[in-house]
Amino acid sequence: MNGPVINPDQPDDPPEGNALFNRPFCVLELRTAVEAGIPIQPVVSMSDKPIQALRKKKDSSMAQAIELLRDGEADAVVSCGNTGALMAGGTLRMRPLDGVDRPALGIIVPSKKKPFVLIDVGANPESSSLNLMHNAVLGSNYARAALGIENPRVSLLTIGTEEGKGNSLINASGIYLQAIDKKVINYVGPIEGFQIFDGDVDVIVCDGFVGNVVLKSSEAVFGFVGNTMKEELVRNPKRIIGAALSKSAFRDMKVRLSPDQHAGAPLLGLKGNVLKSHGSSNYIAIANALRIARQIVRHDMIDSISSDINQANDLI
Amino acid sequence: MNGPVINPDQPDDPPEGNALFNRPFCVLELRTAVEAGIPIQPVVSMSDKPIQALRKKKDSSMAQAIELLRDGEADAVVSCGNTGALMAGGTLRMRPLDGVDRPALGIIVPSKKKPFVLIDVGANPESSSLNLMHNAVLGSNYARAALGIENPRVSLLTIGTEEGKGNSLINASGIYLQAIDKKVINYVGPIEGFQIFDGDVDVIVCDGFVGNVVLKSSEAVFGFVGNTMKEELVRNPKRIIGAALSKSAFRDMKVRLSPDQHAGAPLLGLKGNVLKSHGSSNYIAIANALRIARQIVRHDMIDSISSDINQANDLI
Repeated sequence: MNGPVINPDQPDDPPEGNALFNRPFCVLELRTAVEAGIPIQPVVSMSDKPIQALRKKKDSSMAQAIELLRDGEADAVVSCGNTGALMAGGTLRMRPLDGVDRPALGIIVPSKKKPFVLIDVGANPESSSLNLMHNAVLGSNYARAALGIENPRVSLLTIGTEEGKGNSLINASGIYLQAIDKKVINYVGPIEGFQIFDGDVDVIVCDGFVGNVVLKSSEAVFGFVGNTMKEELVRNPKRIIGAALSKSAFRDMKVRLSPDQHAGAPLLGLKGNVLKSHGSSNYIAIANALRIARQIVRHDMIDSISSDINQANDLI
Repeated sequence: MNGPVINPDQPDDPPEGNALFNRPFCVLELRTAVEAGIPIQPVVSMSDKPIQALRKKKDSSMAQAIELLRDGEADAVVSCGNTGALMAGGTLRMRPLDGVDRPALGIIVPSKKKPFVLIDVGANPESSSLNLMHNAVLGSNYARAALGIENPRVSLLTIGTEEGKGNSLINASGIYLQAIDKKVINYVGPIEGFQIFDGDVDVIVCDGFVGNVVLKSSEAVFGFVGNTMKEELVRNPKRIIGAALSKSAFRDMKVRLSPDQHAGAPLLGLKGNVLKSHGSSNYIAIANALRIARQIVRHDMIDSISSDINQANDLI
């Protein structure tokens, strides 16, 4: 046993902050265990090749955590380790749900209004239109469980009508989404890149390549803007004084936009709850990832996904 | 005649700001002409379907500007009109260069260090690996002509090794780029979304769907960050005073990051210079678009692209 064991009888109110570390809730993957002072060998490192890593390192905390999930001893696994290994291990051991070809990584992203789900952010960089339809079903269920939105507005990421209206993948996916609209999901139509952060939709569907690039380039823009702002704010004494007075505003902004607020991206479409938190997760990120794990366990999200996927597959 | 006519004998130093409006340089497309007080009918509107628009509206300034280019009366066309119509019209009338399957829109983007070229940002949302190789050649020549970089560092946008190393399009394109490396372009390898704004490369190659989403979502992040910052800066009097003192820093940052600084995206790979400036272009944007038009005309960019494309096609 590499970490604290699941106790499915949870208190009603989610504990906040790193208090979660002391609660028997999720099986934590190695890196977290190490951070909590429980070093275990062998480690699945960030540079290990995904499938080899899990085959060769069966005693690693990641492999063991997934085993506990498969044996029903854990309800969820939260890992900050090698994403590829976690996805490969999760998929091989837990298997995709019947009717799901490829699992997808869903992530909660802040917006001008409420946070939304972006799916897929990297699990399947070579999607078919059927995969994107499944992403819509997965994302919709995830938004319901994690964000508490009863009837999430689902949209499809595309490019402007100006430039020639998306591509064949997106056009075919749009037809599928219309076919399951009102019956399985609440499809509100396509969305363009410039609308992503408006907060007018609850789920944005895309393939794993596009989603990963959007997610990472958006984080890069935050960094770039922050960098430029710092340069400008120290250019003369007046600006430096101004920046000192409004320092707390920048701090609060950073907290609001931090990925830690919505850490814990589940690999959706599997028979078990496998969540990835980023490698540099702090206690806030881990606490939030555990909170999300609890939400999706409590909402029986997997059962609900399974039923919706069957319904969607029947409709097309 | 709908706008000022080309005079290929240019002064040596590029004129700055809206002084360009008074110079006989480029044929301006309608919307610009209207802004300059020369309303002409019929208009190709933003909602017109691209190909129909140009077939039915042969007297439109956009159609006429492209005709002037084809007839050799203009060296470049700069338009702020309907992108799809401009791309369709430009491609149909000017034709792609021999050896180029699909033209690509290249745009100059600011970064933490120097600006770089992102190509394609929407002309070809369904690219093959050969298209991406051509984008690399086009982008490299554009960086040389517009940014004055002798040996531009070309990279290929992909997603992390963690998530399974790109997709088949990117992998195949990478092989092509390696094949023409050192001979036609200076290929420095793949780049991830989080590295886009680091400024360590001069050209980032991607397909039109991904490039358009990245460009527009990045602009959306700027808006989102600005929005959040404004909300935080007015939360209490101390912050308001601080913001007032550092106001000029925000103004300067906005100028540095404004798309107007690098307006004018050429549709590369055609036999003529067709440039798109955004629909809401102000005089700074137009001036910069005209400056870029002049740069690429002066550098005989089309001849240089033609030669590089032939060389690249011979190598693979």
